[in-house]
Amino acid sequence: MASKQHENVRAPGSKPGENMLWGGRFTGGLDPLMVSYNESIYYDRAFHSQDILGSIAWARANHKGGILTESEFSAIESGLKKVEVEWAEGTFKIVPGVDEDIHTANERRLGEIIGKDIAGKLHTGRSRNEQIATDMRLWLRDELRTIESFLVDFLKVIAARAEKEIDFVMPGYTHLQRAQPIRWSHWMLSYGMAFSDDLERLREVVVRVNQSPLGCGALAGNPFNIDREGMAKELGFEGLLMNSMAAVSSRDFALETMQWGSMLMTHISRFAEDLIIYSTQEFSFVKLADAYSTGSSLMPQKKNPDSLELLRGKSGRAFGQMAGLMMTIKGIPSTYNKDLQESVEPLLDHCKTVSDSIQIATGVISTLVTNPERMKAALDPFMLATDLADYLVRKKVPFRDTHHISGQCVAFSEKTGTLMDQMSIDDFKAIDKRFEKDVLECFDYEKSVEMRSAAGGTSKASVLDQIAALKAVLA
Amino acid sequence: MASKQHENVRAPGSKPGENMLWGGRFTGGLDPLMVSYNESIYYDRAFHSQDILGSIAWARANHKGGILTESEFSAIESGLKKVEVEWAEGTFKIVPGVDEDIHTANERRLGEIIGKDIAGKLHTGRSRNEQIATDMRLWLRDELRTIESFLVDFLKVIAARAEKEIDFVMPGYTHLQRAQPIRWSHWMLSYGMAFSDDLERLREVVVRVNQSPLGCGALAGNPFNIDREGMAKELGFEGLLMNSMAAVSSRDFALETMQWGSMLMTHISRFAEDLIIYSTQEFSFVKLADAYSTGSSLMPQKKNPDSLELLRGKSGRAFGQMAGLMMTIKGIPSTYNKDLQESVEPLLDHCKTVSDSIQIATGVISTLVTNPERMKAALDPFMLATDLADYLVRKKVPFRDTHHISGQCVAFSEKTGTLMDQMSIDDFKAIDKRFEKDVLECFDYEKSVEMRSAAGGTSKASVLDQIAALKAVLA
Amino acid sequence: MASKQHENVRAPGSKPGENMLWGGRFTGGLDPLMVSYNESIYYDRAFHSQDILGSIAWARANHKGGILTESEFSAIESGLKKVEVEWAEGTFKIVPGVDEDIHTANERRLGEIIGKDIAGKLHTGRSRNEQIATDMRLWLRDELRTIESFLVDFLKVIAARAEKEIDFVMPGYTHLQRAQPIRWSHWMLSYGMAFSDDLERLREVVVRVNQSPLGCGALAGNPFNIDREGMAKELGFEGLLMNSMAAVSSRDFALETMQWGSMLMTHISRFAEDLIIYSTQEFSFVKLADAYSTGSSLMPQKKNPDSLELLRGKSGRAFGQMAGLMMTIKGIPSTYNKDLQESVEPLLDHCKTVSDSIQIATGVISTLVTNPERMKAALDPFMLATDLADYLVRKKVPFRDTHHISGQCVAFSEKTGTLMDQMSIDDFKAIDKRFEKDVLECFDYEKSVEMRSAAGGTSKASVLDQIAALKAVLA
Amino acid sequence: MASKQHENVRAPGSKPGENMLWGGRFTGGLDPLMVSYNESIYYDRAFHSQDILGSIAWARANHKGGILTESEFSAIESGLKKVEVEWAEGTFKIVPGVDEDIHTANERRLGEIIGKDIAGKLHTGRSRNEQIATDMRLWLRDELRTIESFLVDFLKVIAARAEKEIDFVMPGYTHLQRAQPIRWSHWMLSYGMAFSDDLERLREVVVRVNQSPLGCGALAGNPFNIDREGMAKELGFEGLLMNSMAAVSSRDFALETMQWGSMLMTHISRFAEDLIIYSTQEFSFVKLADAYSTGSSLMPQKKNPDSLELLRGKSGRAFGQMAGLMMTIKGIPSTYNKDLQESVEPLLDHCKTVSDSIQIATGVISTLVTNPERMKAALDPFMLATDLADYLVRKKVPFRDTHHISGQCVAFSEKTGTLMDQMSIDDFKAIDKRFEKDVLECFDYEKSVEMRSAAGGTSKASVLDQIAALKAVLA
Repeated sequence: MASKQHENVRAPGSKPGENMLWGGRFTGGLDPLMVSYNESIYYDRAFHSQDILGSIAWARANHKGGILTESEFSAIESGLKKVEVEWAEGTFKIVPGVDEDIHTANERRLGEIIGKDIAGKLHTGRSRNEQIATDMRLWLRDELRTIESFLVDFLKVIAARAEKEIDFVMPGYTHLQRAQPIRWSHWMLSYGMAFSDDLERLREVVVRVNQSPLGCGALAGNPFNIDREGMAKELGFEGLLMNSMAAVSSRDFALETMQWGSMLMTHISRFAEDLIIYSTQEFSFVKLADAYSTGSSLMPQKKNPDSLELLRGKSGRAFGQMAGLMMTIKGIPSTYNKDLQESVEPLLDHCKTVSDSIQIATGVISTLVTNPERMKAALDPFMLATDLADYLVRKKVPFRDTHHISGQCVAFSEKTGTLMDQMSIDDFKAIDKRFEKDVLECFDYEKSVEMRSAAGGTSKASVLDQIAALKAVLA
Repeated sequence: MASKQHENVRAPGSKPGENMLWGGRFTGGLDPLMVSYNESIYYDRAFHSQDILGSIAWARANHKGGILTESEFSAIESGLKKVEVEWAEGTFKIVPGVDEDIHTANERRLGEIIGKDIAGKLHTGRSRNEQIATDMRLWLRDELRTIESFLVDFLKVIAARAEKEIDFVMPGYTHLQRAQPIRWSHWMLSYGMAFSDDLERLREVVVRVNQSPLGCGALAGNPFNIDREGMAKELGFEGLLMNSMAAVSSRDFALETMQWGSMLMTHISRFAEDLIIYSTQEFSFVKLADAYSTGSSLMPQKKNPDSLELLRGKSGRAFGQMAGLMMTIKGIPSTYNKDLQESVEPLLDHCKTVSDSIQIATGVISTLVTNPERMKAALDPFMLATDLADYLVRKKVPFRDTHHISGQCVAFSEKTGTLMDQMSIDDFKAIDKRFEKDVLECFDYEKSVEMRSAAGGTSKASVLDQIAALKAVLA
Repeated sequence: MASKQHENVRAPGSKPGENMLWGGRFTGGLDPLMVSYNESIYYDRAFHSQDILGSIAWARANHKGGILTESEFSAIESGLKKVEVEWAEGTFKIVPGVDEDIHTANERRLGEIIGKDIAGKLHTGRSRNEQIATDMRLWLRDELRTIESFLVDFLKVIAARAEKEIDFVMPGYTHLQRAQPIRWSHWMLSYGMAFSDDLERLREVVVRVNQSPLGCGALAGNPFNIDREGMAKELGFEGLLMNSMAAVSSRDFALETMQWGSMLMTHISRFAEDLIIYSTQEFSFVKLADAYSTGSSLMPQKKNPDSLELLRGKSGRAFGQMAGLMMTIKGIPSTYNKDLQESVEPLLDHCKTVSDSIQIATGVISTLVTNPERMKAALDPFMLATDLADYLVRKKVPFRDTHHISGQCVAFSEKTGTLMDQMSIDDFKAIDKRFEKDVLECFDYEKSVEMRSAAGGTSKASVLDQIAALKAVLA
Repeated sequence: MASKQHENVRAPGSKPGENMLWGGRFTGGLDPLMVSYNESIYYDRAFHSQDILGSIAWARANHKGGILTESEFSAIESGLKKVEVEWAEGTFKIVPGVDEDIHTANERRLGEIIGKDIAGKLHTGRSRNEQIATDMRLWLRDELRTIESFLVDFLKVIAARAEKEIDFVMPGYTHLQRAQPIRWSHWMLSYGMAFSDDLERLREVVVRVNQSPLGCGALAGNPFNIDREGMAKELGFEGLLMNSMAAVSSRDFALETMQWGSMLMTHISRFAEDLIIYSTQEFSFVKLADAYSTGSSLMPQKKNPDSLELLRGKSGRAFGQMAGLMMTIKGIPSTYNKDLQESVEPLLDHCKTVSDSIQIATGVISTLVTNPERMKAALDPFMLATDLADYLVRKKVPFRDTHHISGQCVAFSEKTGTLMDQMSIDDFKAIDKRFEKDVLECFDYEKSVEMRSAAGGTSKASVLDQIAALKAVLA
């Protein structure tokens, strides 16, 4: 979905020239639209560095294997480095209709720089099938490591903020109905735990991404006994893919990444959904920083949580990319089929979407203004109905009865308009004789959260334990 | 997924300046990443013409309604036309960090051309919520009409080719196993019928797309009694959206388009799948034109059906866009939420994907070389086992018995290695006495296809009927 | 996903007996798990009536075509009617491992009732490929007509309630932030319009569902010149599918239904989302009837909007069925492949999900208790900031300036804590001299909604027009 | 999607009686359809054992914590065991309209057996929110372990067969075009590697599934300081979920399982796709056992690979379940919302689909008949064009030239109709002088596969290495 496509600019029709990699045999021309439908250069150029690093490793291994002389290798290596400089400086000129992909483009340019005789030896025993898989995996490995660092930053902010604002008590909701009092930090940490799982999964995914397909050929392997281990080591791969057909056939590393990213984005989305609701005028628990809000072109008073809505909306985008690629991959036979080219654009955009979203979410939570007074004001005595039941449990009343009795207190309160914490001891006793004076001590929100002291609960000690556990994962 | 995003170029941090539409109230700055995360100009500029046409219609209606004077309207109209010229000529300069969307960009530039005093009146009573919905619908209406014409062209090629090659008989497959002889044209028309349904659906979709949201405001309607009918007429809309909240809230027109496109792409994919299989060396029924094939960088003999594989692969992409948008839309409350911005990029790319794919499929089928000899050679007598059963049915044997008897003939043939059409009449009689000499007349592939003469069958008359029906839809 | 599968009950291993439709040739046995993996009887029995009606039509046509005698036809017809009675009365006994699908089961039973000699003639020239397509289309046509009636009922409730509660004014939201005052009826009608579009689309879908594949054979058509028109008429089909391969190959009618249903469910989901938010304690605009709420096993005070959450949640289920079927269909070659069997269960459940959900939504909206006082109380003067800007527009101030000035009033109000409608005329004049005494008249919510009188707006007349338009569609 | 739903049987209307868990407060009745829309008992009964084990652990911990006496605990434990016996023996009677879920049903029955006074104490401090999460995780953990054993069995068959049939050489395909010769075992192992990755991922998933939510309450934790560690240990959990809100809110364990299963199913689908193609008459490399094939009701000669098509088709189903659940989960705020109930049915069916499919795939590959002669016959000299180029590479010709020269040989062969391995040395020399006599030694398929001896290639040693690596994972 590169801009080139959006603008519907199409490469001019062209006869497949001498630079077309398969040369020598085709006699017909190409449909100009087919050229642009087929070419990937406008997005796979994202892999220019990886492609060049892979080619250098390839040339070095072929030099060691006797395919290239020392001087040929040197020429190729320095030539490729010059090509990379052109990319880095933005001076690389893509030749429309010729440079169909990054591999072709780099080799075409290398040939111009060092001459075709030597450049023409680079591709010995190699296939673009293994090249694209190598490029993608190298790029993705690095990208995921960057994303990992963003995720760690996000979790650090959550942990720090949870520590600092541990005393804010707010309503906890189930079904978006007020349920029981919780700590604001407990809410933040509920997402901290989800993102911590994302981090754990990410670390597992990276290991599988970072496996080398180089030396697998088009499908059947390498006939010059190339040193796959050596190349993998040079490129920082953690292992070798062990079957050449699987190596060129698989985009599982991309799919797995997108499955991972899609799940993370559901967490981002729920997180955003909560904050959107908490920042309504009706709730007013939090207020977004101006930096993450926008206004309305029509309504002067509006301050909209656009950042959060984009976080939420982009989770659909991330999912769609994963879903689309699954469908593409599902429907094909083994080894390389051109359908697999459709994995590149979604992967690039998916990673950018996830990466940006984590950073935006970090910005949002870093700058969010909390309103503990509004949180407190939203607590109401009904939220302690369970504590009321628990009170009777402690007096040995079976829970099912206590639940029923507490429900009667709620009904009394609703019917009479007396807040439950304003009911008299006689009101309580009229409902059940086992109520005693100390029942009124139930109506203490702070006490309620402290009561939940089992692991994972809302008590301060438990929340601090969670923070400690989270930090341990980030180290 | 514009290139700007892929390259991770981020707009420099900026204080919201005076051109920010909501001006006047915000005091904080924006996170630079938030600027790029939020801005849509790099893809919604695709709607520049529609945005300008909509603004002219808006200004005209406000002139009629007394909001703008004659000279104010004239200034706005001619100014907007100048802005459009800049877009058309490629000289429009987007101001990074300021022109967050196409509406803002156009109005900013208009102000520079005609002065802010008059330009500042254009947006009276209007919201970007209605603007973007208007722009998208206008753009999509035109795009779908273009796609309709491509689809008609595709169907014309199918009809013409089916007519010309009606005499080619080939194996029909179910479960990818040879089943019964069919006409090659019958195969082509099976897709013709699917694409004809797509055409019918498209015509229904366009009507719903082409409804005007203009005059609906941010959510509550227009307070200056603007002439919505007049604006709709000027812009070529076929009707008005009747509820202002629904009008700004709905992206059903985009979803419906993508549902439509996704289904069409499943047809494209199955069509491609068949042709990929038919063009293997093992089948060899067809050969792709060089224009729609590519070679291998490693294997000199390869000629790969890349066009077909891309058609097949892109059906996943098209689906993913639909699936992603459904998820995005599903999870939001009513009216405009920023999540909806995520509808634009998928829609643009979806339309391009579908449009290109129809054209490529047309190119493929236009230039495909058929090999009727190989089709014929692939027919085998087992494919007439049903005709053999039918023969006995005509002799009043119950079908279930005939099916069983014919199965015994197949088994005899397999066991003895005698082709079924080489079995002697005694062989047949040994299996069932009701076989008579004329049984051998069953083994005629041409006769077999002609026997299926009921509507929808493989007989020449039936196939010609299908072609006539198809043509009728295209007129 | 029939219960049989959930309980992992597997049919005992069985040799393919004489009742296996393909009999006569297979020598091996079946893997018991393969039997249950393959069989569809435990869900396609849903089509028992359709299968029998289709068989009667088939037999009648074959009688007319001379394949069956009068008495054979009579025997088959009355025998099939007896089979149907057994289904209706719940006495039909499925024979495990033998009755793999509804077609096999019905024919097996028919043979037991009228003898195999005559029953064995029923299937003449017919394939299960055309049978299942016929059964599904007949069933779906009827189901969709029922769903249509539920949808009409739902819309009638919306229209009636919108008419009755037209005077309730509430905050309209964009981005879930208070935006402008609207009528409660306007909110309801915003969904009315979406569901009305669903109704329109449904009526288009049914036409395409209701086309006859009967007489198309396994893939190549019918060799006995069967009267397809006659059968279609008997079964209530509106037309014939014109290509036999397409007829047995296509599940577009199922896909299209699910695309339709998935989109409707996104409307249901957004509708539910709004009501879930409106029924929080914080908003309290509405209260669900007890009939559509449930309580908590732990918290006595809870009243949860389970019905709404299920409506919202099931929209994911409906989408998943569509997405899954798209993937299944996308990946196959033309004509019948067994993959298509996977269309049945999702279709059955999808229709049930959509049908139930419409009814539940109808129940919810029918019994919902509105709280107009809370709606009114949630209106705040900031929501009239646009009216304030519009006031200046009427005094010929350019809109961009008015937007800025109104923003300054908002800022003043926020800073000083003076509600905007409590600001003095001097406060206003200090911000902009063009404010005059009558500015205070802006602060009237009822007036504000009445001002939006253009088509589609919030004025009473406009809302009544919407109701009239909606009713017209339902007639 | 239990049968109950398919048959649209609805529970009779009922007043919420005393057994409704929330009792005591609701005054209205329930819509009968709402009862069935809401109830989960007809599918969550799958968790009856887990629910009971969880309750016993709960009671034991509450006994230790002083909430229950020794005798109360004993009564509860033995009562629950009796309930489990009823489930196991199929005598448990679900009370329609009362037993809305498995938790309610079990507690209702417990009360009947041991009396309500004691049974009413079981639920003390517990919520169904934590119960359902516990039940699902326990069930899923065991299910995934069973699936793991099926997957190991499958891989063992692949390894064994690859070892035995290592000498079969066949065409390797890319783009479904003949590419280079490979070993049949190499093809099998290409899937072996994919499934081996699935196994690795599965083992990672199980660890995250097997974490205990028990003791987390409705959202806020447990107020009686219950021993969460002890309960987790009793139930075989490997750890505790550390935040109570996350614990009841998350269905990531279900999503992750389905993401895992969906990816595995894409491997199954591609595996099936290959075998479907290889078992066409045109390819004829393999023949399915009768046990995994079915016939045609119309065409006596047909033997269809239904098992493979179902494997392929069901990958869509598995994906759809995942996609649907992602959508459901994405759109909700934190903690428990009833939408989450929609996770149960897809999870049950997904696991069954994956489990069955692995077993069927194992059956298919175990019984598949290979045809090495047909494999060999399909090799053609063009598949050695790369070897021809490599020959020249070894003579120091730059690869790009060798690729071009080899292409000219292909063209010569095509043009003259001389098979490439039948070309004379003069023919070769006429194309390029560097060809020498030994060029003819290139045309040896066995030699070609042995040449690819780098890790991951087609040589026998490399394939044996792969087998060894695979076996190591299974140990």
